[in-house]
Amino acid sequence: MSVTAAHGFTAAGVTAGLKSSGRDVAVLVNSGPTKNAAAVFTTNSFAAAPVLWSRQVLSDGRADAVILNSGGANACTGPEGFQDTHATAERLAEILSAAGSDVSATDVAVCSTGLIGERLNMEALLSGVHQAAEELTTDAAGGVAAAEAIMTTDSHYKVASVEAERFTVGGMAKGAGMLAPGMATMLAVITTDAVIAQADLDAVLHEAVRVSFNRADSDGCMSTNDTVLAMASGAHPEAEEAGVDLGDFKDAVTAVCDDLTRQLIDDAEGAAHTIEVRTVAAPSEADAETVSRAVARSNLFKTAIFGQDPNWGRILSAVGTTDVAFDPHRVDVAVNGVWICRGGGIGEDRSLVDLSDRLVQVLIDLNAGDSEATILTNDLTHDYVHENSAYST
Amino acid sequence: MSVTAAHGFTAAGVTAGLKSSGRDVAVLVNSGPTKNAAAVFTTNSFAAAPVLWSRQVLSDGRADAVILNSGGANACTGPEGFQDTHATAERLAEILSAAGSDVSATDVAVCSTGLIGERLNMEALLSGVHQAAEELTTDAAGGVAAAEAIMTTDSHYKVASVEAERFTVGGMAKGAGMLAPGMATMLAVITTDAVIAQADLDAVLHEAVRVSFNRADSDGCMSTNDTVLAMASGAHPEAEEAGVDLGDFKDAVTAVCDDLTRQLIDDAEGAAHTIEVRTVAAPSEADAETVSRAVARSNLFKTAIFGQDPNWGRILSAVGTTDVAFDPHRVDVAVNGVWICRGGGIGEDRSLVDLSDRLVQVLIDLNAGDSEATILTNDLTHDYVHENSAYST
Repeated sequence: MSVTAAHGFTAAGVTAGLKSSGRDVAVLVNSGPTKNAAAVFTTNSFAAAPVLWSRQVLSDGRADAVILNSGGANACTGPEGFQDTHATAERLAEILSAAGSDVSATDVAVCSTGLIGERLNMEALLSGVHQAAEELTTDAAGGVAAAEAIMTTDSHYKVASVEAERFTVGGMAKGAGMLAPGMATMLAVITTDAVIAQADLDAVLHEAVRVSFNRADSDGCMSTNDTVLAMASGAHPEAEEAGVDLGDFKDAVTAVCDDLTRQLIDDAEGAAHTIEVRTVAAPSEADAETVSRAVARSNLFKTAIFGQDPNWGRILSAVGTTDVAFDPHRVDVAVNGVWICRGGGIGEDRSLVDLSDRLVQVLIDLNAGDSEATILTNDLTHDYVHENSAYST
Repeated sequence: MSVTAAHGFTAAGVTAGLKSSGRDVAVLVNSGPTKNAAAVFTTNSFAAAPVLWSRQVLSDGRADAVILNSGGANACTGPEGFQDTHATAERLAEILSAAGSDVSATDVAVCSTGLIGERLNMEALLSGVHQAAEELTTDAAGGVAAAEAIMTTDSHYKVASVEAERFTVGGMAKGAGMLAPGMATMLAVITTDAVIAQADLDAVLHEAVRVSFNRADSDGCMSTNDTVLAMASGAHPEAEEAGVDLGDFKDAVTAVCDDLTRQLIDDAEGAAHTIEVRTVAAPSEADAETVSRAVARSNLFKTAIFGQDPNWGRILSAVGTTDVAFDPHRVDVAVNGVWICRGGGIGEDRSLVDLSDRLVQVLIDLNAGDSEATILTNDLTHDYVHENSAYST
């Protein structure tokens, strides 16, 4: 179940011709009693026009609807690109208002993904918005069509949901390359029918993103368009005015974000292995993340895993580039359960490591504290080089 | 001309059997009136045994000789690995002393390169040291043999030299993968027959390395064994006790380091393009370096260049991940002379860019200051993935 798993949302995805084939424009509308919204955006200085626009939309904590398109990032397109985004939001607001919903363009977020540095085909996009608005539905099919419309080099759509007693959390995401570190080239929308204060929604979203999307690091490349948008309709049939239990809600949002994150990494461009780099016994959680990320970003480590070579020297050399405080002589490393490095030196026989499965688990024990963190990444393969050299994306 | 271009040095390179074929043990001896030496080492926490040893050797600013081997990095090999390095230095000191030179092991540096996490074959290494000591010569052939003996995945040996009026600077280097950022998986030795105070030699070497080897960033991976060693014999026939002109000397050392750096990048693992990423009009030199390095480390940029795609969106998205202060709307980018990005947006037609030559010049104008810096890198290719996945190095 997708973004329409939560009550109070309608969605649609249509084929507007922005990309060579398939759906490319999605619309999601919150028709519930509350319009609370929160978002996390890329920190890239070259934030795309839709990011600049949506930051303004979200500044008052409200979003009534969001338009998402693939087939063009609308990034580095100057003031004209920003006008395009603005016009897109205006158009949906007009259509929804004409249908009796009284929506302001300044409450319509926009997300775009695709090639940087090219203007969008506005005729195609606006006609797609029209068509999508006509097809809006609470059905699961609408959520799936929306999830399909945001795909770029993704091989399949990504949706997730969690049902709790008094609320539901749904979600969709896209992302395949340029996956890091403030999120990935990714768009994600989280919906909920929970009754939740905007400040709580904002806090829960930021914390969930911190430990999920922000710990996916496919290729170390940060995008200009990353957006995770959360919208709360308050439309659950058993909603209570007092709202939901915050702990339960945070768990559910985090679970949906985790689920989507794993789907993104499992479908990362050209990947043959999904790799969990877990660092434990670190001085702090930030240190553990730093160590795991350094390994996740090592091209030499990532090519070794592609070649099914448990080359722990490349793991240690990456760990050693960080400024984290640890004793090199007390570091142990296991790959898929075999402790091939003990005390910063030679451990068990590396030929005992089996790397034939898709999932690879790297465990780095720093013996320097009580904190841990895991970064999800993937190997560096011929297919990654092929996809990113043969096509302009 | 190589390390023997400078007067007062003898060198040799022999085949000891540490690697499957070819020379793998080199010895270089300073027989001049001065033994001043300086070095720059990796900052990796998992510094290899030869790095730990050579740091001690260099702590008094003197080195009489250096042994270098390929076929094994002697990194992450524990106290036993350190003993191996110590024994290697002892052996050469004994041999040289027996021949009448009175050399202490604590004045013999050691450099190793190859696979991390395996002990060296000491029998082969020590017999190689014997053989090399017997073959020491001031001839150019000795310098070339030494340069060959330090090769790993290098496709050819790297030597360079500069002759000035009252001194000569020679050099050799190896390095092919794990090339960054504090130097690269590289070993380099710079020799000079200049009369130069140790403090001056040290200062000149550090500054030269900062703007040469440290600005080569092939794959973002920092090694455990990086060493640049400079040795001064004071043996130039026209040497004057007052020493050389420091400015001239610095220029010569920098030129040799630049020459070797370019050779390393030109021969980087699997590279099809050598890429100069030059950032100008930056607030500071450090900022310019940060921006250039961010681009040089972008796998998406590097695969695009491999595919001969002047994808400036991937350049800007990498620039935008830095914390350098600039106005995104004032950034221009040229690739091979064509300004395909103007004012952070669309510039000249990207189809005008010709990427068929080996050399690619990226120029990023931040319009935010007066400083500049260039990082040398290369593209990310199928051959890189192949070399680093099919072989354990």
